[in-house]
Amino acid sequence: MGSGMISEDILIARYLAPIAGEGSLALLDDAAVLSPPPGHDLVMTKDALVAGVHFFADDPPASIARKALRVNLSDLAAKGAAPAGFLLALALPADLDESWIAAFAAGLGEDAKAYACPLLGGDTVKASGGLTISVTAIGYCEVGRMVKRTTGRAGHKLMVTGTIGDAALGLQMRLHPDAAWVRGLSPDAGAHLAERYLHPHPRNVLAGIIRDHAAAAMDISDGLLGDAVKLAISARTDGAIIAPRIELARVPLSAAAREALALEPRLMATIATGGDDYEVLMAVEASRATAIGLACAQAGCEATLIGDIIAEPEPEFLDMGGVPARFGVLKFEHGWKG
Amino acid sequence: MGSGMISEDILIARYLAPIAGEGSLALLDDAAVLSPPPGHDLVMTKDALVAGVHFFADDPPASIARKALRVNLSDLAAKGAAPAGFLLALALPADLDESWIAAFAAGLGEDAKAYACPLLGGDTVKASGGLTISVTAIGYCEVGRMVKRTTGRAGHKLMVTGTIGDAALGLQMRLHPDAAWVRGLSPDAGAHLAERYLHPHPRNVLAGIIRDHAAAAMDISDGLLGDAVKLAISARTDGAIIAPRIELARVPLSAAAREALALEPRLMATIATGGDDYEVLMAVEASRATAIGLACAQAGCEATLIGDIIAEPEPEFLDMGGVPARFGVLKFEHGWKG
Repeated sequence: MGSGMISEDILIARYLAPIAGEGSLALLDDAAVLSPPPGHDLVMTKDALVAGVHFFADDPPASIARKALRVNLSDLAAKGAAPAGFLLALALPADLDESWIAAFAAGLGEDAKAYACPLLGGDTVKASGGLTISVTAIGYCEVGRMVKRTTGRAGHKLMVTGTIGDAALGLQMRLHPDAAWVRGLSPDAGAHLAERYLHPHPRNVLAGIIRDHAAAAMDISDGLLGDAVKLAISARTDGAIIAPRIELARVPLSAAAREALALEPRLMATIATGGDDYEVLMAVEASRATAIGLACAQAGCEATLIGDIIAEPEPEFLDMGGVPARFGVLKFEHGWKG
Repeated sequence: MGSGMISEDILIARYLAPIAGEGSLALLDDAAVLSPPPGHDLVMTKDALVAGVHFFADDPPASIARKALRVNLSDLAAKGAAPAGFLLALALPADLDESWIAAFAAGLGEDAKAYACPLLGGDTVKASGGLTISVTAIGYCEVGRMVKRTTGRAGHKLMVTGTIGDAALGLQMRLHPDAAWVRGLSPDAGAHLAERYLHPHPRNVLAGIIRDHAAAAMDISDGLLGDAVKLAISARTDGAIIAPRIELARVPLSAAAREALALEPRLMATIATGGDDYEVLMAVEASRATAIGLACAQAGCEATLIGDIIAEPEPEFLDMGGVPARFGVLKFEHGWKG
């Protein structure tokens, strides 16, 4: 044990109990309890994050906490579910001292409040390697209304929320700070991309719209193109041969991403396949696309039509000039590619 | 990535999807969905296990899987809840090959079936150190009927299920195979203790009895005496000054533990504080103790009266001869003591 290590009991009482919600029993029990509102399903998601794989060990502790919660909130948003609370398992390396824990808990507590998703319980253990965080987020939606990934059909339009590629570019900036395009970026653009890598902006504010309008949805965590393929393949359980068709020229980009792309056009592959977007990819009936776009814009986050689902065995990606393009690696697997 | 490492998608499709239950959406979605039966609360618990902290990295993979699920099932049992399913986050080191994964999934699948607790979803990531497993188990109980830890009162009797100390002795055998008492044990006794360290036997079969009869309960994971203190201190939220009084001579021991204790009387401290029991500690109204004992015995697992809750500020432990005893370390913190 490191000299700075505090005991599990103190960690819980001093830092986690203050951010715990109803149902957590003040973290004085072995389990949390939730009374789901009548007529609602429970929607549950569990994403783990590992230092050196999903974040940098020296990232600000509050940012690490926010990312761990937000990647799970993003799943709830994509499913059209409202957050009910979360459980947290922390495997802590011995070199994290109390000030680190305090900052982690502060960031977590702020997000728990901002997203109305209180801490319900969990576990704190000693890590065998780097910091490992597992969050289970629980949400509610009306019975049978969870938006699935498997319900996309040929003819559906594909839409995405927000902008794509910012976080992937922010990660590349961290990995290759001396790249010409990174040195050429304006300070504002650099700051934007760095921020989007550190802090996903899950679209929980759109959950109701997604639930009411989307035929299928998933959050984009492993890259837009790969996740679009995943969405289509998930829906093949009914025997339909379908695939996504995406026009890269339609993919919504932030001003910062456009600036990076102007400096280095090859970054379009990073943008389209880099991952960590935590935006929502929706398959929608063509007749609903306009209504969804309007409703999302009114809720404060644009949704953009980027393509459709086609009755073909292979995906079709059109590059910025409208020419069919091939991408070697469609999907970003955090850390798995070494 | 190790050469033996398989991709996350293959791992899920080949090994985890076959053990997934209804609500998991065949693991083809980002979230699981549960429709709680009307009139029921959700009970949720999340325990993480780390290689080298909670188990040995070279334990059989099926045993590691069983332990990860069973320590969570044990929490549900202590709360009087019936299992509904579980989510699994696996942080896998690169040196685990497909045969390891296959054996892990096989053990997990057998237990999921045996305990009627299907896999609902989760996440698989690359570990930064050793194998790290986080399980979130979800259970149901009738609204307001979850058995809390905070509801023990002075005058309650303390009862425990099964036998105490076997797993802690099994761990000591692993750590000190050349100790005189280990070498003196009969093969049967040694096998029993080793098995109980590898495989907790959660008391889910008693959940209904616990729910109907116990005033407060928790599962014993960090040592009987320390957890008894924890149960009493949790109940001090109402201002009552209470503590446990436990007669060690009454603590139920297996034949194997009695054999070890005859060889080395000082092992009583290991038995009473060593942890990993995953039995249930109950605080019960004195008038109900006999009924609970009978009901548990009929259900196939003894429950034994070991003491009571007293209106005192300090716990009272009476040794095998009935003399007040002191224990230096009441609580076993997995790995935290280095």
